[in-house]
Amino acid sequence: MCVPALPHACMLPHAEFIAKASQLKIQLAETLKPVPPPGTYTFGDIKTDHMLVMSFDPANGWSAPEIKPYGPLAIDPSSNCLQYATNIFEGMKAFMGPSGKPQLFRPQANMARLSSSAARMALPPFDEDALLTCITKLVALESRWLPAESGHSLYIRPTMIGTKPTIKVGASDHALLYVIVTPVGPYFPTPPGESLHAQSVSLLAVSEHVRSWPGGTGGYKFGLNYSPGFVPQQAAAKLGYDQVLWLLDAGQGAGDLVTEAGAMNFAAVFEGADGALTVVTPPLDGTILPGITRDSALTLLRTPGALPSLSSTRITVEERVLPVAELSTAHAAGTLRECFGVGTAVNVVGIDRIGIASLRAGEGEGLKVKVVEDVSPSSGKGLGPVGRALWDMLLDLKEGRSEFGGWGVVCE
Amino acid sequence: MCVPALPHACMLPHAEFIAKASQLKIQLAETLKPVPPPGTYTFGDIKTDHMLVMSFDPANGWSAPEIKPYGPLAIDPSSNCLQYATNIFEGMKAFMGPSGKPQLFRPQANMARLSSSAARMALPPFDEDALLTCITKLVALESRWLPAESGHSLYIRPTMIGTKPTIKVGASDHALLYVIVTPVGPYFPTPPGESLHAQSVSLLAVSEHVRSWPGGTGGYKFGLNYSPGFVPQQAAAKLGYDQVLWLLDAGQGAGDLVTEAGAMNFAAVFEGADGALTVVTPPLDGTILPGITRDSALTLLRTPGALPSLSSTRITVEERVLPVAELSTAHAAGTLRECFGVGTAVNVVGIDRIGIASLRAGEGEGLKVKVVEDVSPSSGKGLGPVGRALWDMLLDLKEGRSEFGGWGVVCE
Repeated sequence: MCVPALPHACMLPHAEFIAKASQLKIQLAETLKPVPPPGTYTFGDIKTDHMLVMSFDPANGWSAPEIKPYGPLAIDPSSNCLQYATNIFEGMKAFMGPSGKPQLFRPQANMARLSSSAARMALPPFDEDALLTCITKLVALESRWLPAESGHSLYIRPTMIGTKPTIKVGASDHALLYVIVTPVGPYFPTPPGESLHAQSVSLLAVSEHVRSWPGGTGGYKFGLNYSPGFVPQQAAAKLGYDQVLWLLDAGQGAGDLVTEAGAMNFAAVFEGADGALTVVTPPLDGTILPGITRDSALTLLRTPGALPSLSSTRITVEERVLPVAELSTAHAAGTLRECFGVGTAVNVVGIDRIGIASLRAGEGEGLKVKVVEDVSPSSGKGLGPVGRALWDMLLDLKEGRSEFGGWGVVCE
Repeated sequence: MCVPALPHACMLPHAEFIAKASQLKIQLAETLKPVPPPGTYTFGDIKTDHMLVMSFDPANGWSAPEIKPYGPLAIDPSSNCLQYATNIFEGMKAFMGPSGKPQLFRPQANMARLSSSAARMALPPFDEDALLTCITKLVALESRWLPAESGHSLYIRPTMIGTKPTIKVGASDHALLYVIVTPVGPYFPTPPGESLHAQSVSLLAVSEHVRSWPGGTGGYKFGLNYSPGFVPQQAAAKLGYDQVLWLLDAGQGAGDLVTEAGAMNFAAVFEGADGALTVVTPPLDGTILPGITRDSALTLLRTPGALPSLSSTRITVEERVLPVAELSTAHAAGTLRECFGVGTAVNVVGIDRIGIASLRAGEGEGLKVKVVEDVSPSSGKGLGPVGRALWDMLLDLKEGRSEFGGWGVVCE
């Protein structure tokens, strides 16, 4: 059985990948870089000493993977990835576990999502377990870069790019799969001396630009879901907001719906008349990223006793469409308790303010967005009780102080 | 006045680009490749001997451009272009002019569109005229690659990619601007011995996957508009169709509207009760590419006497929404005279069949698209009279046998 549409020598692609992955070659860097102290670098700027690289071509299938010194890739200028954006990626973190070894959080879920992205992007399939084994070896090799401070981690970026060297529009039957590693602190830095619970950001809810739509690719971890957001992000920053909250009016009559914030999934906590809380987050309808932190948070919220600090709070979780107007109404009624974002990069971050841009106001005027309303949850700055419970438990799980569902995987 | 959001040394970016462009360096290849005979290669596979490269970084601004041997680019694995698809491009063609010199077709329009793409992608601005001057020098240098046969050309691919080496999500303040050249024949090859007028293709009209959306970036020449179409394209090919015709139902009540075919803009010709023809093409509403061939074709159709073979035909041109259902209705009524695609790659190509996929039928079933109806214009295979008049005149203009509006630019 061959890979459809990838006319290379007939061999089960997974068996081939597993066979090649077992031939992992390691070429160590001759000199190692100095490891800068945590807090002295920005998210994603510093790369460790090594990277993992494999290539695929139709004649030879997958190459044996190589861990080698971090450095530039030689890419043909006509490559599919540069011309037509056949770029997929994952975001994973390794935290320092209690045994002094790095540990990953639900890495199988990242591998499964990368597989799904590869299939949708018509890039070659790979074996998830075999790739994960190579990644744990890379992380173990780079463990001197892992800061011991809680909340700090190694951010791991598996990437696959289409390298077919032709400008003819069509799928790439050549690919490069590589994994790079960068030491990171909190995505949104907190003021010195403040607890990580104090983290919070403001969002500008934008409907003039649309991140994704029904039948589009917003549900995949594609590079191409991100760059169209850079100009709106700059406009939001000019107005004093940290990130964009993407809205979508899919013409179903519900008006502008909340989707996600690009770097994270979104959740709002409403208080009912009886004092019970409802956590609402948009559903996985193909327009938002199926976040692994999102899934973890929902699972914890739905599992009785999983979040001790909320044991006396009645909480319902709803995955459903969330009109942005519902945030305004609840804000006005005083029932919008918390808003927070969840994602691998941020873990959990409080949202202290949502500016709602004048709907369609900027049409024909480029980026002259007017904020018509600012909505703030009553929890104010930092994380509210629900966000804090999730932050604490997710970090405990990621750093190996707690265990749930076999989610932690130690890199030996 | 600095470029907003690009914190490099303060200098008018255009003046800087012009100054740098005047320092063009040329490093010739030591050995030149053999030029294969036309007809022996596929569109976009063969690259000429040289390429043009410039780089931008926030400290130094634009580098002096260099024409140098074609070869791989060294790109950091964390580069914005590989991670977040900050890739923009243009497609231009140089044809052999009557004086034996290559000539370009409306290249200023390509430069203007590249500028607009750069601004929307938050990539650094450049001077359009100065870049065009560099490109004409590259084309003149590569003129031995230009086939003399009518309908053959050099396809020129200006590309700009974001090279900021960080995985932090945000605009790239580093960029590489490069231009590569490839000799090409007709995009859809005709059977041997048949006239180029015989070219025609079939399209599968798809609504399950959606290429672009109001508020999206379908109106820009972004690499990211193309790769999401590869899987649907493979599905269409399996069903025996050459290309996908992208539909869009944005909830305006008109049902699925025709947008474009990815590699070309779309037009249909309807015959009225009085025998007059109406050429209908979707409007530039931001969801389709503002094609230069599209604009040229519309201009010629609207200019009395510009298309001599149609001088006795009454023709109206309408840029308006085109529900796919209108194609079915006209097909049933026998009033669908022609359908054709227009674009730089194809010039004009007949569309002999449009399969309409069962609307939303594949939902939840992946790509199990069912064709419910095949619509064919009565002109059948090849180009009909309107498409043929456009093919002839556009090729005459591109190859310098006719002149209109100063559209032809000779590369000295």
